[in-house]
Amino acid sequence: MLMKFKDVREKGFRERIKLSNAIKLGEISFEIHPLERINITNNTINKRILRENIYSQRDIPPFDRSAVDGYAVKAENTYAASENSPVRLKIIEEIQIGQIANNAISDNAAIQIPTGGVVPKGANSIIMVEDTSRISDTELLIFDKVHPNRNISKKGEDYLKNKLLFKPNYKLRSVDRSILLASGITEINVTKKLNIGIIILGDELIEPWIFLEPGKIPEVNSISLFDLCMNEGWNPKIIGIFNDNYEIITQTIKESIKKYDIIFVSGSTSVGKKDFIPIILNDLGNIIFHGVAMRPGSPVLCAKLSNKIIFGLPGFPTACIIAFLFIIRPILNYYSGFNPNDDLIKIPAKISRNVGSKLGTIDFLRVKLTKDTNDHYLAVPIQISGSGRLSNITESDGIIRIYENSEGLKEGDNVLVELYPF
Amino acid sequence: MLMKFKDVREKGFRERIKLSNAIKLGEISFEIHPLERINITNNTINKRILRENIYSQRDIPPFDRSAVDGYAVKAENTYAASENSPVRLKIIEEIQIGQIANNAISDNAAIQIPTGGVVPKGANSIIMVEDTSRISDTELLIFDKVHPNRNISKKGEDYLKNKLLFKPNYKLRSVDRSILLASGITEINVTKKLNIGIIILGDELIEPWIFLEPGKIPEVNSISLFDLCMNEGWNPKIIGIFNDNYEIITQTIKESIKKYDIIFVSGSTSVGKKDFIPIILNDLGNIIFHGVAMRPGSPVLCAKLSNKIIFGLPGFPTACIIAFLFIIRPILNYYSGFNPNDDLIKIPAKISRNVGSKLGTIDFLRVKLTKDTNDHYLAVPIQISGSGRLSNITESDGIIRIYENSEGLKEGDNVLVELYPF
Repeated sequence: MLMKFKDVREKGFRERIKLSNAIKLGEISFEIHPLERINITNNTINKRILRENIYSQRDIPPFDRSAVDGYAVKAENTYAASENSPVRLKIIEEIQIGQIANNAISDNAAIQIPTGGVVPKGANSIIMVEDTSRISDTELLIFDKVHPNRNISKKGEDYLKNKLLFKPNYKLRSVDRSILLASGITEINVTKKLNIGIIILGDELIEPWIFLEPGKIPEVNSISLFDLCMNEGWNPKIIGIFNDNYEIITQTIKESIKKYDIIFVSGSTSVGKKDFIPIILNDLGNIIFHGVAMRPGSPVLCAKLSNKIIFGLPGFPTACIIAFLFIIRPILNYYSGFNPNDDLIKIPAKISRNVGSKLGTIDFLRVKLTKDTNDHYLAVPIQISGSGRLSNITESDGIIRIYENSEGLKEGDNVLVELYPF
Repeated sequence: MLMKFKDVREKGFRERIKLSNAIKLGEISFEIHPLERINITNNTINKRILRENIYSQRDIPPFDRSAVDGYAVKAENTYAASENSPVRLKIIEEIQIGQIANNAISDNAAIQIPTGGVVPKGANSIIMVEDTSRISDTELLIFDKVHPNRNISKKGEDYLKNKLLFKPNYKLRSVDRSILLASGITEINVTKKLNIGIIILGDELIEPWIFLEPGKIPEVNSISLFDLCMNEGWNPKIIGIFNDNYEIITQTIKESIKKYDIIFVSGSTSVGKKDFIPIILNDLGNIIFHGVAMRPGSPVLCAKLSNKIIFGLPGFPTACIIAFLFIIRPILNYYSGFNPNDDLIKIPAKISRNVGSKLGTIDFLRVKLTKDTNDHYLAVPIQISGSGRLSNITESDGIIRIYENSEGLKEGDNVLVELYPF
C-alpha cells in the first residue's frame, strides 16, 4: 500500500496501545499535582484528596457521658432490684446537660442525668428512667439491676486523642468533615483543585441552542466534559468552540496552557485531513500516547507541554465520555494523589445475552442493571459500538469491560458492572 | 409503675412505630413540593427531579454522517475489490466537515469525506481511508469491499424527533444535560430546590473550633446535616445552635417556618426533662410520628406546621446521620416527586461474622465492604449500637438492615449492603 505512515497522525493509529499501558504511561509522565492547605469550617471537602496523616486533637467523647436519660448510680447498689422488689435510692442532685455534678455518688445515692450528661464521680452505671419510678423529690425506686459501665459512653470510646483518623491519598467524603471538626481539626492539606480548560474543535459544530443549519451538529461535548469534571470536584472552564484551523488552534493551546493545569481538546484527534491536534502537540511538546486499543474512545491522546497535561478526546459524544471515564479519570485521579486511582463501584451480575467482541481491543459495553426473577443483578447490554450515540450513556447504569483477550460474552456469564460515577 | 405516660414526650416513646410505617406516614402527610422551570444552558441539572415528559426536538444525528475518515461510494462498485486486486474509483470531490457535497455519487465515483461528514447523495457506504490508496488527486485504489450502510451513522439513529427521552419523577444525572441540549431542549420543569433550615439544640454544645470547656461537646450535627443536604442537591442553611429554652425554641421555629420549606431540629427530641421539641411541635402543629423502632436513630420525629415539614433528629451524631439517610431522605425524595424514592446502590455480599439483633427493631449495621479470598464481597460489621460514634460512619461504606423479625445474622449469611449516597 502507498502513502501509509505519512505523518504523526496515522502513526498514532497504526500502533494503538493497550489501555492499561496508556494509563500507566499517563501516570508516570507527570509529577503529582501540588497540595494546598484549606480551612474546612465553611467549605465542603467532598472528593478532595487528602495529602497528610490526620490525628485527632481530642478524646471523643471528651468525658464519660450518659447514653440515656436516667440516674447515675453505683451498679452494686442495684443488684437486689427487681420488678416486684424495687430498691430505694436517694436522689442527691439533678444535673443538666453541659453541667458538672457538685456531688460524687456515694452508696445508695443517685443523681438524675440526661442523655449526653457528664457522668458524676463515683458513679459506674446509669439506670434508664424507664426502669425507675420517682416517688418524691429525693426518693427513687428502681425496678431492675444494672451492670457496671451500663449506658455510659466512655471518654475516648469513639476515638482517642492522637488516633490516626485518615491517611494520605484518601478521597474525602462530605461526611468526613464532621469527624475532622469534632476532632479539633480546622485545616487540612489536600491536592489543589485541578483547573481544566475545555477546547472544542470542529467546523461542523455549533452551540446546541442555536438553529441547526444543514450539515451542522449541536455541540455538547463541552457540556459533558464540564459536568463530568464538576462531578469529580475539579474546576472546569469551557474555553470555546474553534474551527479546524492550524494557526488558531496552536495559538489557543499556547494561551490556554498558561492559564490551566490541564487542557481537554475534543475533536480533531483522529487521522482526518484536518485533525491537526496530534501535529500541533508533537510540535509544541511530547505526545505520551495517541490511539488506544479500546472501543469506543480509541482516538484519545495524551501529551505533555511545559509540564502541563493535554488530553485529546474523540469528537463523538459517547466515545468522548468513555475516554474521559476510563482513561483520563484514572490518570487524573493518580495525578491528584488519589491512590488507588479507581473508585468506581463494581457490582457482580449475570449478562442477559451473548455479546461479541473484537480480539485485541478492550470493549466498554454499556449496560442497564436490572434484576432477574431470583432478584439477582442482570446486566442488559445497550451497546458496544455506536460511539456517537449519546442515548446509550443516558440509558445505561455503567459498563462491562470485555478484555483484549476475549471474543465476547455468553448469556449468563458472570460479569462485573462498573457503575458510572455520576 | 408510677408517673408513666405523663406527657407527649414519653407517649412517643412507649409506641415506637415501625420504620416502614413512619416513612409511609411521612409520604402521605404532605403535598408534593412545587415545580419550577429552569434554563439548563448554564446550570447543572445533577439530582434535580424531572416533572414532565421530555421529547426530543430533533433527529440525532440530524443527517446521515460518516463514522470514519474515508470515501463515500456506492457499495456495489466495491464488491470486486481485494488486497491483491484493487478497484479503481474516480475522486470527484472532497468535502470538509460541516459542508454539503456539490455532487451526487455516480457509478465508480468517490467523494472524500471526514469522520462526521454529511454523506453525499447517491452514496450508500463509506470505505475507510485505511482500505484505500490515493494514487493521484482524482484516482483512488480500494483494497476491500464494503457492504451497503457500512460506516454510516443514519439520521436519527441515536434518537428521532419526538422520541420520549425522559419521564417524570426521574432523578436527573449530570450527563443527562448533554442529551437534553443536543435534542434542542433548553428549559425543563423540575422540582424546586428544597430550602432546609437547620436548628441545633443543646446546652452542652459549642462550635467545634472553640476551646472545649469541661462538660461541653463539639457540635457537628449541623455540619453533617448541611453536607448531607448539599449531597442531595438541596439548599441547606444552618440557622444556629440554641439553648434548651422553651420560649427561644418556640420563637426560632415560628420564625424559621416562614423562611424555609423544611426545618431540621437536632437534639431535644428524646424524653429528657428539657427535651421540649415534641411539646412545642404538638402545641404549634401536628406530630406525624415520634419515636421509630430503629437502632440507631429511634428518637426521630416528624411534624406538620402550616404545611411546612419539621423533622426532629437525634442529637447523637451517628443516630442523626442514620435517621437522615433512612427516614428523612426517603420521605423528602418522595416529597420532591422522585419515584421510586430509594436510589441507594445495593451490593450483595456475605457477612464476615455473627451479629445479634433485637426483635421488633430494625437495626442499621454499619459495615465495611471488602473482598474475600474468592474475590467476592464481604461485609465486615463495624457497629450496630454506639449511636454517638461518628467514627463508625467514616469507617464504613454502608449499612445492612437487620429487620424487625430477625434476631441477627450468622457468619456467611447473604446480605445486601446499601451504600451511603455520599
